[in-house]
Amino acid sequence: MAKLRCQISMSVDGFVAGPNPDESQPLGEGGERLHEWVFKLAAWREPHGEPGGEVNASSEVLEEITSGVGATIMGRNMFGGGPGPWGDEPWRGWWGEEPPFHMPVFVLTHHEREPLEMSGGTTFTFVTEGIERALELARETAGGKDIALAGGAEAIQQYAAAGTLDELTLNVPPVLLGGGTPLFGKRAAAVALEPAGVVEGPDATHLRYRIGLGGPDRGQARPSPG
Amino acid sequence: MAKLRCQISMSVDGFVAGPNPDESQPLGEGGERLHEWVFKLAAWREPHGEPGGEVNASSEVLEEITSGVGATIMGRNMFGGGPGPWGDEPWRGWWGEEPPFHMPVFVLTHHEREPLEMSGGTTFTFVTEGIERALELARETAGGKDIALAGGAEAIQQYAAAGTLDELTLNVPPVLLGGGTPLFGKRAAAVALEPAGVVEGPDATHLRYRIGLGGPDRGQARPSPG
Repeated sequence: MAKLRCQISMSVDGFVAGPNPDESQPLGEGGERLHEWVFKLAAWREPHGEPGGEVNASSEVLEEITSGVGATIMGRNMFGGGPGPWGDEPWRGWWGEEPPFHMPVFVLTHHEREPLEMSGGTTFTFVTEGIERALELARETAGGKDIALAGGAEAIQQYAAAGTLDELTLNVPPVLLGGGTPLFGKRAAAVALEPAGVVEGPDATHLRYRIGLGGPDRGQARPSPG
Repeated sequence: MAKLRCQISMSVDGFVAGPNPDESQPLGEGGERLHEWVFKLAAWREPHGEPGGEVNASSEVLEEITSGVGATIMGRNMFGGGPGPWGDEPWRGWWGEEPPFHMPVFVLTHHEREPLEMSGGTTFTFVTEGIERALELARETAGGKDIALAGGAEAIQQYAAAGTLDELTLNVPPVLLGGGTPLFGKRAAAVALEPAGVVEGPDATHLRYRIGLGGPDRGQARPSPG
């Protein structure tokens, strides 16, 4: 079966965003430092419409976000626009009129909204029936390809704790944040990690894991879907 | 100049001990899982008087703790025996009568005490004049060799924030703790990390960093002494 895969940048001390996030600083204090490793890569610049950039050991890891992926899932916090109902001039995402996904994107939310078709093949579909339903819709759309879970931490935690996240790659730049949004927080006990390799990039180390359920089955990753 | 080097096991989510440590569980809930990678290594078993064991990619990393090292520094919490004055039957450490250090060990404490000579070359010297004085004494004793900083988190944080810790290796097994003692906590802003390599062991990933000062000089590791 197609896999649900996730990649997220995390500080060495385990935070996926810095302290005190707000609208002007959605990644929190210092949080943008988690992503500096990616901005210089050609593999990031090209889909974002920027020329040039480097190719290094991190490029291949970044390319996996889209390679063999037929749909993306993200949480409401990552899509943005604040909590609560969408209002009269609903938020259209952080990414401008041509978002870099170029595929169907399913947004987890408690607030209903019509699908939003953007330029370049990205359609945001808003799912109010929960994480399992969003995954089901993504699988139907993806035509056998894998699903990318884009974030944020809350969505990742929910899928991991439910046992439906298959693979997690942590992109770890040499950054300490000292506080902020923890990767798993109190849901850590529900999640087991099985090492699946390490890639050493010049500006970030990439730690790959297969995800299993914690608790009584702690340490037992589910069998690979093959 | 001889370097101050440190190695510590840390969970993927950034904790060096689990929640709620007490005398029966000094590493906190689940904290012993951080150290399982080491117990099977011949390089750990031999100095602890245990036969057999594996040799793998983690062995070399472990051997660096003692290789070229002439003295060790540790905090009072790591030496153990609870906080406060030493009392009438003072604590002799967690390691029995022949501790695995086999070298002078300087223990940071607020409470004076005569040096304690153990079997096998380990002498515990109790330093009440602060971290700089302990480092000075360790350097005098080490005869040009490096100094190992054994832990715990508080001692590591103090040396790192003071700018006197040169190298840090984080041994990261596939463990999530969800809470506990953070590696740097609120002192993170005072510390800058510069990547110095990754070793992928079967049961832990080893992340090496050179340590610099954060704040205005953030990201600038001090020049290598060698």
